Amino acid sequence: MTSNREIHLASRPSGWPVEENFRLVETDVPTPGPGQIVVRNQYMSVDPYMRGRMDDVKSYVPPYALDAPLDGGAIGEVVASEAPEVAVGDTVLHGLGWREYALLDATGARKVDPALAPASAYLSVLGMPGLTAYAGLLEVAAMKPGETVFVSAAAGSVGSLVGQIAKLKGAGRVIGSAGSAAKVERLRALGFDAAFDYHDGPVRESLRAAAPDGLDVYFDNVGGDHLEAAISALNVHGRVAICGMIAQYNATEPPAAPRNLSLVIGKRLTLRGFLVRDHNNVRETFVRDVAGWLREGRLSYDETVVDGIENAPAAFLGLLRGENLGKMLVRV
Amino acid sequence: MTSNREIHLASRPSGWPVEENFRLVETDVPTPGPGQIVVRNQYMSVDPYMRGRMDDVKSYVPPYALDAPLDGGAIGEVVASEAPEVAVGDTVLHGLGWREYALLDATGARKVDPALAPASAYLSVLGMPGLTAYAGLLEVAAMKPGETVFVSAAAGSVGSLVGQIAKLKGAGRVIGSAGSAAKVERLRALGFDAAFDYHDGPVRESLRAAAPDGLDVYFDNVGGDHLEAAISALNVHGRVAICGMIAQYNATEPPAAPRNLSLVIGKRLTLRGFLVRDHNNVRETFVRDVAGWLREGRLSYDETVVDGIENAPAAFLGLLRGENLGKMLVRV
Repeated sequence: MTSNREIHLASRPSGWPVEENFRLVETDVPTPGPGQIVVRNQYMSVDPYMRGRMDDVKSYVPPYALDAPLDGGAIGEVVASEAPEVAVGDTVLHGLGWREYALLDATGARKVDPALAPASAYLSVLGMPGLTAYAGLLEVAAMKPGETVFVSAAAGSVGSLVGQIAKLKGAGRVIGSAGSAAKVERLRALGFDAAFDYHDGPVRESLRAAAPDGLDVYFDNVGGDHLEAAISALNVHGRVAICGMIAQYNATEPPAAPRNLSLVIGKRLTLRGFLVRDHNNVRETFVRDVAGWLREGRLSYDETVVDGIENAPAAFLGLLRGENLGKMLVRV
Repeated sequence: MTSNREIHLASRPSGWPVEENFRLVETDVPTPGPGQIVVRNQYMSVDPYMRGRMDDVKSYVPPYALDAPLDGGAIGEVVASEAPEVAVGDTVLHGLGWREYALLDATGARKVDPALAPASAYLSVLGMPGLTAYAGLLEVAAMKPGETVFVSAAAGSVGSLVGQIAKLKGAGRVIGSAGSAAKVERLRALGFDAAFDYHDGPVRESLRAAAPDGLDVYFDNVGGDHLEAAISALNVHGRVAICGMIAQYNATEPPAAPRNLSLVIGKRLTLRGFLVRDHNNVRETFVRDVAGWLREGRLSYDETVVDGIENAPAAFLGLLRGENLGKMLVRV
């Protein structure tokens, strides 16, 4: 416990990020002040939304600063505490990933029980991606039993849970799209009724074949041609929960937008963007449902784990290229 | 009462319709069979949605047939009846415009009281455009007091009511866009807090100047650059009621879509297309509210009236070019 390594943003990416946008920096392990704790991170999360924070634009979260550590979801063990409510040895969830040791106010940490679930699960199925899937599908898109649901990036951390939760909540038919044959195979194993590789042809045609009777709900992680295809396939009173548009996060030009948007009138479609932070009101039922399904073995979750803080940039770049199955994590 | 004139669709328009797409046809005045009535139309409505029905595409209403009369909202006096519940002399609202005499089942007609309001009002402020404005603003966009509302095509039959109803229901600020200086002047007279001519510069800039603190609600009649500008200007949790996209009804190419659609995520925007026919549940409160406002002189409505069934195509073409102030009607 003599040195700490962290990842700084060395320069802002233009288009696709590259390794040179990141810098591994060695610092001292911090010492907590009053009310503070030091956490040795065990896992940190890399997420698509982080790409947006690398640009210097106003958004719903402030941009990352240059020459300073990145941040994001992480879980670890408290190794020093000057806060009475947190003890050394506690496992806590917090927002200062991208570093080996995190110094933070104890109020910014949430204690979790590592006996209930593996630490990594709090960053995936029981964490932000899980709640995103649950709230987006059931609250934002208001899925009802019997409906047909389509989710893009379906082999990712959020998408794979959306599809499974839809089935568990009584969806009539669940369709997923993903970026490789192996992912498509995995979706079938997870219980998706249909799945396709979006490289295999126009999304519109693949979707029509997979959903001959149309869609009621589309959970959008991708934007672009997926959204356009879904708008065409949606039935009257269909809903779109817009969670992400990863297809365009690295675009340097404004993206092509759905050119069939006027269909929303005749079909009375609803498109709703959402952020998980608005949906803490369902966290309790989410945890109860998901913990129950995990216990009963009815819900699976995949993790792709990369070892070593020095490989966090590579993990992030891999995530943007879709190299993950399920949640992409860095074991620190 | 020896001959009847009606307008047929002679050919399907490609892009902007022209007079040659229509044909004036002389027929006999029909005779009612059992349960039927004959109505001498006094006013007929021309509406933007009719443009879509001139194309041979599947939509929420069937396309108009070639070499057959067009149809649409109309009001007139019953001149012959073989239905016990409707008497000669009654004034009825029905769906067979574009002709001087309409033959229809009595079940397809709704009796109205011509003493309560001028007949034309049942095709505008008290009719479909009025309910569209009311339900779109208050139900679909769920406007709340104090909010900032923007409406496009604001000098049209729906738009002018949206803006006034917003003020009457306590909107903090109401902004309208229209297509001429005279219309902009009219909007100011109607009580809009700000109004601009969209020819005067990029909509995005005009809107930013008119709504420096952003928008909460956008009532979209136009699509295209108006929708894109509104998405940029909307505040967190803003809502868009999508009523029409007249900017693209005559497009022969797929229209440019909003290229900033990914903003819906961070701002948690909701975009909802709607059709007035789904909102009959608010018809009663709509009639009560609007009749009250009219009685109290707090709500104005404009009508642009063209005389003669033979001029109905010209009235429709004028509507598409924005030559109307308020509701465009044909006095038959």
